[in-house]
Amino acid sequence: MQIHPIRCVDIALGERSYPILIAEALLDNPAAYRDVPNATSAMIVTNETVAPLYAARLEQALGARFKSVHLVTLPDGEEYKTWQTLNLVFDALLRHGCDRKTVLFALGGGVVGDMTGFAAASYMRGVPFVQVPTTLLAQVDSSVGGKTGINHPLGKNMVGAFYQPQLVVCDLGTLKTLPQRELSAGLAEVIKYGPIADMAFLDWIETNLDALLRRDAVALAYAVQRSCEIKAWVVGQDERESGLRAILNFGHTFGHAIEAGLGYGKWLHGEAVGCGMVMAAHLSHALGLVQADFVERLSGLVRRAGLPIKGPCLSDSDNAGRYLELMRMDKKAEGGEIRFVVIDGSSSASMRAAPDAMVRQVIDACCS
Amino acid sequence: MQIHPIRCVDIALGERSYPILIAEALLDNPAAYRDVPNATSAMIVTNETVAPLYAARLEQALGARFKSVHLVTLPDGEEYKTWQTLNLVFDALLRHGCDRKTVLFALGGGVVGDMTGFAAASYMRGVPFVQVPTTLLAQVDSSVGGKTGINHPLGKNMVGAFYQPQLVVCDLGTLKTLPQRELSAGLAEVIKYGPIADMAFLDWIETNLDALLRRDAVALAYAVQRSCEIKAWVVGQDERESGLRAILNFGHTFGHAIEAGLGYGKWLHGEAVGCGMVMAAHLSHALGLVQADFVERLSGLVRRAGLPIKGPCLSDSDNAGRYLELMRMDKKAEGGEIRFVVIDGSSSASMRAAPDAMVRQVIDACCS
Repeated sequence: MQIHPIRCVDIALGERSYPILIAEALLDNPAAYRDVPNATSAMIVTNETVAPLYAARLEQALGARFKSVHLVTLPDGEEYKTWQTLNLVFDALLRHGCDRKTVLFALGGGVVGDMTGFAAASYMRGVPFVQVPTTLLAQVDSSVGGKTGINHPLGKNMVGAFYQPQLVVCDLGTLKTLPQRELSAGLAEVIKYGPIADMAFLDWIETNLDALLRRDAVALAYAVQRSCEIKAWVVGQDERESGLRAILNFGHTFGHAIEAGLGYGKWLHGEAVGCGMVMAAHLSHALGLVQADFVERLSGLVRRAGLPIKGPCLSDSDNAGRYLELMRMDKKAEGGEIRFVVIDGSSSASMRAAPDAMVRQVIDACCS
Repeated sequence: MQIHPIRCVDIALGERSYPILIAEALLDNPAAYRDVPNATSAMIVTNETVAPLYAARLEQALGARFKSVHLVTLPDGEEYKTWQTLNLVFDALLRHGCDRKTVLFALGGGVVGDMTGFAAASYMRGVPFVQVPTTLLAQVDSSVGGKTGINHPLGKNMVGAFYQPQLVVCDLGTLKTLPQRELSAGLAEVIKYGPIADMAFLDWIETNLDALLRRDAVALAYAVQRSCEIKAWVVGQDERESGLRAILNFGHTFGHAIEAGLGYGKWLHGEAVGCGMVMAAHLSHALGLVQADFVERLSGLVRRAGLPIKGPCLSDSDNAGRYLELMRMDKKAEGGEIRFVVIDGSSSASMRAAPDAMVRQVIDACCS
């Protein structure tokens, strides 16, 4: 086993601050959990895909700290990010007599992390929780920053809370078991940080994309670290998305419409975001904010990462109309007006409305 | 119509501070809502009992402030304080295209207030909300302090959030339509403030109980104001119940067991709390903390208020055992140990564990 040092990125949010630890062979290292609050019991929330791979190792590491360590295993997939599944966590917590100090551990990808976080925010009005993300997408994005929640048939993440974990433990070793499709989905969120905040990082990704796709340990470690640094910088300035933080949703307005329109779970979240970034780049160009060659460059990178760059057809009669209808449900919309995250090709993003006719043209051009 | 001045009690919680306004004919006075945040839309959440009485008046007052005012009417009763009912609110919010600035108005008693508050805490990860309590219990207790949530079959208020309203509007006029049983239930929470914080207020309640029971406007105004002052003082020191705030649960440990054991909705919450206070007073006496004559005095007052002082039988085979089992689910329990709020007969309360055998004796003596 190759020994890497533990990298640490701090999320600075006053009394809600916490560290992100990044290293290989970390999830069963008891030292990683040294600063987790004391309690009688812990509950690991995971899914049926991740449980056989990593649950026993985490249980063992926590056994030293907690008198009892419970495990609840959820079905796997975005289509299960529902109240019904969340309730399985509450049932287990109450059945085991878990109290207000019980610590929840989210072991899995974005869906497990979002649901465990919302369960922790809501159980007895709030218990502590720790993120142990096992997918690239969760390590670089969803486990960091305290966005938690579940989907509603009418929109993604419509019910949830801003609730920060005590700690994020990114074990790079878990990325070795990730299906290639999920690795690509995670790369969508890595690529995202380039155009919105750091064009030098975009250059680095372009240079190192092949290494990332073949899971080179050094390349993955840097991609996770730099992504977390950028996310920490944004979240530290705007925890509850009253302004700046919305730039992290670059590609997500179109992406959420794709996910909701196809039915949750058809496309992976990262796939929808990858394609959504291409559509948002085209819209930025239509608004005169970015050059056509940058749109080409970003599209090429998204394609090379193994992600779709053409949106799916969501309606045979009025495809663009269906996209618009779904996007009006977006959380960034206000008074019925969709607000898009647009880019300028020089490390910064902003929020903009756009005329429906222009958005329709972009959708028509970007859908197959 | 008799004109009273508007009384104002402030909840001091830094940037989450807000006023409680108390007066007659307040709910349709647009001035009451002057400081509510601007938004395109508002949503009134109420129930089928309260809607025909007060919804139109509130809608009219809000019509001046919001472009659209929506209404969602829930079934009435503690047994509907569930996820299924809460989801009706999310459905309505999404169906009407409500956004992250939409203001929710809870028009009703404790159940409506707790569910609307949790809906506001969770919809799009948090929208503003206003409490417009129409029962005595909600005006003196549940609408103030930011405890929100729903019940779980295994325990009361097990899923929820600490989430503060922007404003509480107590219209004393609404108490005129309250059924006598509900008035008595509200008096349980008024009486509670005496032993835990203010024995002079307990004296005042004893002197003025008949006036309160016949809904004398001046007596009710003072009872609501003084109760809110005491609650504001406690919540201002301990918003998230890490210590002091737990004293507000005097009578609630036994009370929640009664509610869960009988099935939600059989006894009103205030009835269970009234009886629970008598049981907690007996336990305080058994622990040597309070004189027998104070237990008698409190029991007499609870009975005069029209509330039960004998607990129901929750199990034919082992009644005390069933109470204990249910109380171990209490949110104040830690590591399986029940922590009771006990009183000393001189304006103060504290948290204590008690031997099971002693608790059994108290239950046996207090149940019919």
